[in-house]
Amino acid sequence: MNQFQIVPEGTVTSPAGFTAVAVAAGLKKENQLDCALVVAEADCSCAAMFTQNQVVAAPVIVDRETLAADNSCLRAVVINSKNANACTGDLGLANARATQQIAAVALGCEANQILVLSTGVIGVQLPMAKLEAGIVAGAKGLAKENGRLAAEAIMTTDTHPKHLAVRVALPGGSVTIGGMAKGAGMIHPNMATMLAVLTTDAAVAPDVLDGLLRTAVNRSFNRISVDGDTSTNDTILLLANGMSGTAVTDPDSIAQFGAALNQLCTALAHMIVRDGEGATKFVEIQVTGANSEADAHQIANTIATSPLVKTAFAGSDANWGRLLMAAGRAGVPFDQTKINLWIGVRQADELQLVANGTPTEYQEAQAAAVFAEPEFIVRLDLGVGEETAVVWTTDLSHDYVSINADYRT
Amino acid sequence: MNQFQIVPEGTVTSPAGFTAVAVAAGLKKENQLDCALVVAEADCSCAAMFTQNQVVAAPVIVDRETLAADNSCLRAVVINSKNANACTGDLGLANARATQQIAAVALGCEANQILVLSTGVIGVQLPMAKLEAGIVAGAKGLAKENGRLAAEAIMTTDTHPKHLAVRVALPGGSVTIGGMAKGAGMIHPNMATMLAVLTTDAAVAPDVLDGLLRTAVNRSFNRISVDGDTSTNDTILLLANGMSGTAVTDPDSIAQFGAALNQLCTALAHMIVRDGEGATKFVEIQVTGANSEADAHQIANTIATSPLVKTAFAGSDANWGRLLMAAGRAGVPFDQTKINLWIGVRQADELQLVANGTPTEYQEAQAAAVFAEPEFIVRLDLGVGEETAVVWTTDLSHDYVSINADYRT
Repeated sequence: MNQFQIVPEGTVTSPAGFTAVAVAAGLKKENQLDCALVVAEADCSCAAMFTQNQVVAAPVIVDRETLAADNSCLRAVVINSKNANACTGDLGLANARATQQIAAVALGCEANQILVLSTGVIGVQLPMAKLEAGIVAGAKGLAKENGRLAAEAIMTTDTHPKHLAVRVALPGGSVTIGGMAKGAGMIHPNMATMLAVLTTDAAVAPDVLDGLLRTAVNRSFNRISVDGDTSTNDTILLLANGMSGTAVTDPDSIAQFGAALNQLCTALAHMIVRDGEGATKFVEIQVTGANSEADAHQIANTIATSPLVKTAFAGSDANWGRLLMAAGRAGVPFDQTKINLWIGVRQADELQLVANGTPTEYQEAQAAAVFAEPEFIVRLDLGVGEETAVVWTTDLSHDYVSINADYRT
Repeated sequence: MNQFQIVPEGTVTSPAGFTAVAVAAGLKKENQLDCALVVAEADCSCAAMFTQNQVVAAPVIVDRETLAADNSCLRAVVINSKNANACTGDLGLANARATQQIAAVALGCEANQILVLSTGVIGVQLPMAKLEAGIVAGAKGLAKENGRLAAEAIMTTDTHPKHLAVRVALPGGSVTIGGMAKGAGMIHPNMATMLAVLTTDAAVAPDVLDGLLRTAVNRSFNRISVDGDTSTNDTILLLANGMSGTAVTDPDSIAQFGAALNQLCTALAHMIVRDGEGATKFVEIQVTGANSEADAHQIANTIATSPLVKTAFAGSDANWGRLLMAAGRAGVPFDQTKINLWIGVRQADELQLVANGTPTEYQEAQAAAVFAEPEFIVRLDLGVGEETAVVWTTDLSHDYVSINADYRT
């Protein structure tokens, strides 16, 4: 019942009525792309989710204010990489607002129609002269075919751009949803990921858009972890410009649009995990048989963020004792004599390692073969209820340490 | 007002009436010490604290039962390294109880006077024949001078033994408190650390001993973190045999004994952090100006366990944005415009990096010089209250990954 299809080479500009541009404004070294504009040809409904960190970057504060005032007239998103504009005080806030003004003038709209996103180093003021020149130059180069370059411009330690688009056949006509995201480190979103911009040419009211985005994000970006650290800048935006002429108003259309949005978000979230800093493994942690989804999620999350689990993944060492140790420290009560543990490259090929809390007679070579794969599944059943949760994570490798020990140099 | 003094080369056998032995029972390779006995010449009061992990090792279950039945008649502790006897089911429990029996026969006491501790790999049954032979042989070699060897025998990835003793002049006479601990990895105790055995020749009633141990542990072993992972085997025991002839009953004696115990526990806890797996730094995280000690502790802990903070420590990179990021994701509400941050090699030499949420005019070279030191202090003030907490932690280095990616091989 696949009612949507992947758009080949799809990007944030695949939906009708969106263009983009990427420029090298000089924030990064050596003429690398570091600033992107995504621009809609008509006013957009916008739904957004932001970091739950207590320390929030200036653009998060400004975007929250902008959307609280009016979330039905958005025209453009300005994203810079290399500098997070976080912990930058009043000047940082003023710079974020000035960025809105600069873009509004360059694009011929109002400042309250512009959203701003930043990612990069914390505690350094934005070089506004460079950024202004970049935005002004960029506004002259907006084009449909720049979607991939925009995804490249928002990268920090990402090794490749992350973008995707899907086309959905709704009862009233076909609509497209596109998206781009950046991740790599400080990835343990709570409400949203580092940065993601999603676009659609469907006509969707802001409140409907908001509900659909929350549902999709809670099962995708909120279920991934690279290092357990939640960024000060996490933001996900979904802009709907209505230019397909198809409205998402009836329950069927909402359900189908929502399903496609879920898939798009899950795919982008997986791309972030796969490109996690130093990641050599992509591991799906399933917790089943729990009394509540919250319990299952908490345990899956604790396993996914345990340094000892993640270094065992890095070493391809099926040291399952660490999986149980991490489950046991998650703060969720359970009976260790009821737990069962399986690992497998695919669900169908599961190998049971633990039955009722004690090791099975499995062969170490079989377990080692699973952990040697670049992708595998770990499933822990608590044996007490029916609820489940899934979290996707990576290993903790030497490269993660290398990348982060020297990030600023 | 230093009412206690360090005993030179002090160990768990420094108090009167304690002996020890260490043997190579064959659990580790190449004739390494892997089993220790600590034996009292008189019945001991005993206080104990165990892991809060939901997955608990067999010896933890057995010791809890043993102490619940009678905590005033303990005679010996048997500790093995290399094998945690965790996730070993009914056979694991039977083996822990058999260890009590074997030691009781060898030492000429009752099984309920023996406590058993294990540390090492999870999910493997103890080689009981080897362990029995080791205990029987060891019981014949008990001696006062074996305290340091006992501390060596309980090591896993520790690089050196950890032991200490202090002498306290109480109103009624002088008493000694000795201790040994092992740590290195899976160190983020919640109630107790990996393994620690403390002894004293003071006469202390079990309930008094229990209160003193809890107070000491909560400010020492419960305030350290190497990797945020809580072991299935964490246990700390304090045995009091009364053989000094000095009783700890009056408030003054209790206070002075408690102060010395706090110092001993703090010193042993620091030794564990300094010898953390791959550790190249010893960092004191102070959080001040909080509304509650719990808030301060939660934030200090989140900073101490953040992979991005710990890799910055490893890289000697004064990337303070990560400190604020970690504080902000601790789940404690605060106002980012009120926070202040200092770093320093000593409290007196503090360098302020952040004032009211924004960077000061400090020189990068000054900050880098602090982070280049092997030991330094980070102090974050929330600016809202009077409560404080301190946590001690290490960096996350390449060696941590190396040690843990290949732990079992």
